[in-house]
This record gives sequence, structure tokens and C-alpha cells, in this order.
Amino acid sequence: MLHFREELEELQSKLLEMGGLVEAAIHNSVLALVDRDEDKAKEVMWNEALVNQKEIEIDELATRMLALFQPMARDLRFITAVIKINNDLERMGDLAVNITERALTLMREPAVKPLIDIPRIADLAESMVHRALDAFAKHDADMARDVLLADDAVDRLRDAVYDELLSFMQEERSTINRAVSLMFIAQNLERIADHSTNIAEDVLFAVKGIDVRHHAETGE
Amino acid sequence: MLHFREELEELQSKLLEMGGLVEAAIHNSVLALVDRDEDKAKEVMWNEALVNQKEIEIDELATRMLALFQPMARDLRFITAVIKINNDLERMGDLAVNITERALTLMREPAVKPLIDIPRIADLAESMVHRALDAFAKHDADMARDVLLADDAVDRLRDAVYDELLSFMQEERSTINRAVSLMFIAQNLERIADHSTNIAEDVLFAVKGIDVRHHAETGE
Repeated sequence: MLHFREELEELQSKLLEMGGLVEAAIHNSVLALVDRDEDKAKEVMWNEALVNQKEIEIDELATRMLALFQPMARDLRFITAVIKINNDLERMGDLAVNITERALTLMREPAVKPLIDIPRIADLAESMVHRALDAFAKHDADMARDVLLADDAVDRLRDAVYDELLSFMQEERSTINRAVSLMFIAQNLERIADHSTNIAEDVLFAVKGIDVRHHAETGE
Repeated sequence: MLHFREELEELQSKLLEMGGLVEAAIHNSVLALVDRDEDKAKEVMWNEALVNQKEIEIDELATRMLALFQPMARDLRFITAVIKINNDLERMGDLAVNITERALTLMREPAVKPLIDIPRIADLAESMVHRALDAFAKHDADMARDVLLADDAVDRLRDAVYDELLSFMQEERSTINRAVSLMFIAQNLERIADHSTNIAEDVLFAVKGIDVRHHAETGE
């Protein structure tokens, strides 16, 4: 069983590496947008290949461990949680790529308005991702619960961003294309936050064996 | 092992029930939009509780089977594919709810334009979902590959919808709110199609043991 514990640690550390790559992608996508920084955008695009590679590695290791060691109870819950978290992280990486693609278009045009609320949503979303992964690393159920509570604030901010952008579009139609891009970016950030709550739910399941999905609906 | 085969069949049929619920949700969400049919909208909302319940049941059964029977090779791949497909289906159900929420708002206002391309995207997406589930039911790798090929057509149609809606918004700003809602609906349909390709990839992995993810990037 010593061998199993070693592989379990390897699995955990691979997932945390994946998490680090995705956190960097999200952060860089927002910098590409806010600072109009094309180099950060390139980093995100290049990084995506690594994220995809890592996703496959983790899936293979987890599946192999299920077959070889036939784990039970908490170990089994941990490995199935890794498979799900891995999937969420890969989606979050895709969302960071979507944000970056829109940022690349937006940086070629004048700003619609100073960006205030979108960086705020980004900060909240990044903090949720970070704490969800920290809860996973530390097997900390309380930290995972905190992540679930943060989701409402993101939803409210996103709604405020939508309303503000809609009024910009109404007042000045030359802003429509850019404002629509910003709305999609706000939505992508909200979905990143939502994936963080999925991760937090998986951590609670892995650590405590309790299923908190669908009790307080978060939508997507 | 007879018992294992029985449970495997139960798992498969539960997942196909889940698939049926989600297919109905997608179909009804589009009818709510196109026919301005509030009853269909209510069906989607009511249906969501069943989808969420079914998701948890399937996850529990799959996890229990991994622990009890310690399956190997193809059986193990099949069960881990079920866990992933289940997750995709639940997301697709959420997307149908999003479409329905927007349809409920839109049915209280005059139409921006006759809906032509959005129902077309919906038809394509529904057909992809259906064929992906059929490929799963029949363990049919060729059918799964066909689903992967259909995704580009959906992306092209969605881009055409975006362009058309943007020009409506430019020409007549009173349409902006409604046009933005239609853009989000088109995006939700595109994501439903994208989840169908995930399912098709999982079917290929379960049936053939080959991993086709990230070879032809589909984005999200």
C-alpha cells in the first residue's frame, strides 16, 4: 500500500500543477484585457497546450490507479473527485482562452469605458479558484464551504456589468461590438467562478462524503 | 459477475434516461423560444429537479460499482465514461434552463426578427446530442466520430447569428436588449453542441480506448 500512497500524492501534486497552470491562464487573460498586453495573451494561448496535456496525464493516472489499486471509501472518493476537478480545470482553461481571444480584438480598438467592475469580478473569481484548490490541497471542508458562499457576489457583479454595458450600447451605438465582447468576458468570468464552486463541492464530497450539489442552486 | 453485468446495464439505462430528460429539456427550451410557449418553459424548469436527482443517482451507482466490483480495462473505461457523460448532461440541462429563462423574457416583447438561424442551430445541436447518446447506447465508434465532425457547422451558424444580430443592434437600438438575449441563446446552443462532442469523445474512449481530446480543438 506504500506504493498506492505515493501515487496518490503524485496524483494530487499533478492536479495542483494543473490548477497552477489554469490560475496563471485566468490571471494572464485578465491582464491581457486590462493592460492591453499582447504578450500576456500569447502566454495564455501557449499555456493551453500544456493544460490539455496535463488533463490527459491526470485522467490516465487516475484511471490506472482505480484499476490497479481498487481503492475503497475515502480513497475512491478522492480519485473520482480528482477526475471531476480535472475536467472543471480544463474548462476553466478554455474560458481563459475565450477571454484572451476577445481581449486581443478589444486591444485594437479604443476603450468603451474604464474597466472597473470586470477586474473586480476577475479578482473574486481568481480568489475562488485559488481557495477551491487550496481546500483540495489541505483537504479543508470549511474552506470549500467558503468558496460556495462567494458565488452570489460574482453573480450580482456580473448583472451590474450587463446593465451598465446595455446602457452604453443604447447611448452610443459605435460601442455595441465592444460592449458585447465585454459582456461575454463577464459571463466567462462568472462561469470560471461557477466551476470553482464545482471544485469546492467535489472537495466536500472527497473529504466528508457529503453531496452538496443542487441544494443551493448556483446555475451556470 | 452476473450481478456486475446487471448493474452495468442498469447504469447504462439510467444514463440513457438522464439523456432523454436532457434532450426533452433542450427541445422544450427551443419551443418556448420559437413558439413563445410558456407551458414548455414551465416543463423545462420542473424537469431540472429530475435531471439533478438523476445526476446524483448515476454518480452514486457508478462510484459504488467501482468500489464493489473493481472493474478492469473496458469495463473500467465504460464506468469512468459514464461519470463524465453524466456531468456533461447535467451541464446541458443547465444550458437549457438558461435558454428558457431568456425565452420567458423574450416572449413578453415583440420579436426582433423572424427566427431562422437559431432554430437551425437548435436542430443541429439536438441531432448531435441524440446521436452522441445513440453512439453510447450502441457502443458505436463510427457514430461517435460523426458527431465530432458536425461541430464546425454549429460554430459557423452561431457566428452568422452574431453578425446578423450585431447589425440589427446597430440599426435600431430598441432591439439591443432582445438581440443580446438571442446572442446568449445562440451561445448556449453552441455549448450544448460542444458538450455533445465531449460525450462522443468519451464514447470513443470507452469503446476503443483511444483518447481523441485536443487533437482537433473544438474550443468551447
